[in-house]
Amino acid sequence: MPQSVQLIPITGLPLISPGDDLSQLLVHALAELNLTLFSKDILVISQKIVSKAEGCFVNLAELTPSVKAYELANVTGKSAAHVEAILQDSVAIIRARRDLLIVEHRLGFISANGGLDHSNVGHDPNLLLRLPDNPDASAKAMRQKLQQLTGANPPILIIDSHGRAWRKGTVGVVIGLSGLAPVQNLRGTPDLFGELLQHTEVGFTDQIAAAASMLMGQAAEACPIVLVRGLPFEFDEQATAAEVMRPRETDVFR
Amino acid sequence: MPQSVQLIPITGLPLISPGDDLSQLLVHALAELNLTLFSKDILVISQKIVSKAEGCFVNLAELTPSVKAYELANVTGKSAAHVEAILQDSVAIIRARRDLLIVEHRLGFISANGGLDHSNVGHDPNLLLRLPDNPDASAKAMRQKLQQLTGANPPILIIDSHGRAWRKGTVGVVIGLSGLAPVQNLRGTPDLFGELLQHTEVGFTDQIAAAASMLMGQAAEACPIVLVRGLPFEFDEQATAAEVMRPRETDVFR
Repeated sequence: MPQSVQLIPITGLPLISPGDDLSQLLVHALAELNLTLFSKDILVISQKIVSKAEGCFVNLAELTPSVKAYELANVTGKSAAHVEAILQDSVAIIRARRDLLIVEHRLGFISANGGLDHSNVGHDPNLLLRLPDNPDASAKAMRQKLQQLTGANPPILIIDSHGRAWRKGTVGVVIGLSGLAPVQNLRGTPDLFGELLQHTEVGFTDQIAAAASMLMGQAAEACPIVLVRGLPFEFDEQATAAEVMRPRETDVFR
Repeated sequence: MPQSVQLIPITGLPLISPGDDLSQLLVHALAELNLTLFSKDILVISQKIVSKAEGCFVNLAELTPSVKAYELANVTGKSAAHVEAILQDSVAIIRARRDLLIVEHRLGFISANGGLDHSNVGHDPNLLLRLPDNPDASAKAMRQKLQQLTGANPPILIIDSHGRAWRKGTVGVVIGLSGLAPVQNLRGTPDLFGELLQHTEVGFTDQIAAAASMLMGQAAEACPIVLVRGLPFEFDEQATAAEVMRPRETDVFR
């Protein structure tokens, strides 16, 4: 049988609170599952537990909305405080319509509501979860800690779920990473007939993110970490998640 | 250990030619790999081998470009015959720039170059591969044939690689399917804290497509079919790939 890829859900993690050490909790969960971590694995981690561990909450009751936030609240039907929270994490407004606010996040990603989310946060309707301040750094720190704890050094992808411009439904995408380049350039690679490919770039880590998000689910979020085993890759220690962003000057949909 | 998902590359298929019976070839390949097909599996199939089996080629040397094709050739730098081929499979032009022609395909998908592709087609530079005429019907017919041959009736996804508006690199997406609904609606599903989700739609089959495309690669395309094993799903015999398309009236990026 050919080499297959395994997507292993890491269950058994507790509810995450600010200050929790995700690496330590992951090592415990792996031990409970009788799983050994290898450097040739890839760890895919939901942004939500990273944000929770880092205490990236925003309390809408504590915000004073700007004039701009009131204007956009009027357009979108969202509360002014909610819009204010989105604006504080954004650098540009891409589209604002009824029930829709698509922004460029300060991290460079274009998505709805600036990565803010209320699901799986708790019962306080004013409490939203923000994206981590520096997801690449979060991934790198977690990798270093895991190496200390286990000796293994697998790449880490921190993922969120984004909508798409023309297709319904969210899919997992990478917002932070360590150890793996987000885009594979196949230009000049021979095809089946030996013809060289002209301009094929593959969204490698986003494909991995989408694969892992199949197992994470969106609702009860009982599986915030997926271990990918058997997928060949090359380490890239300089890679950043921002490399996947299309530069503004070649963005024709802004 | 929790239930993991296996992505199994189906290697050993021959180069596909017009008239080939993909179901028969797949059954042979599975036998060579000592794999038994189950109805609870999901089969993910590259659009390219479906198009080849169905003879969906276009020969640029046989096309007479329209005035519109010459205009767009001028804008994009593509040949007028190439643009003509794209226009013949499209219903709307979304963006035209140097080296870029994004259209709405007659099947509803918005992507670059109308799904036409020269890679893995052969040495004749005039020969391009078109999308299948009716990928949902192709998936359904293949499923019926597989059921006759094996007794198993797994859902089938036919996938292509699309670019994204704001992120570099292509990812696998579904262009035809049978047996599985493309979008899962989680509205009203409880989260970890028992709070009901407000508006979460998940691009379920696109996540599966992206997962499979990790294994297919884009270059030598030695693995045009991936078997997904262990992912829970519910059959939907009425589902169509078109359900994933965002309706024009809610498309703010046209």
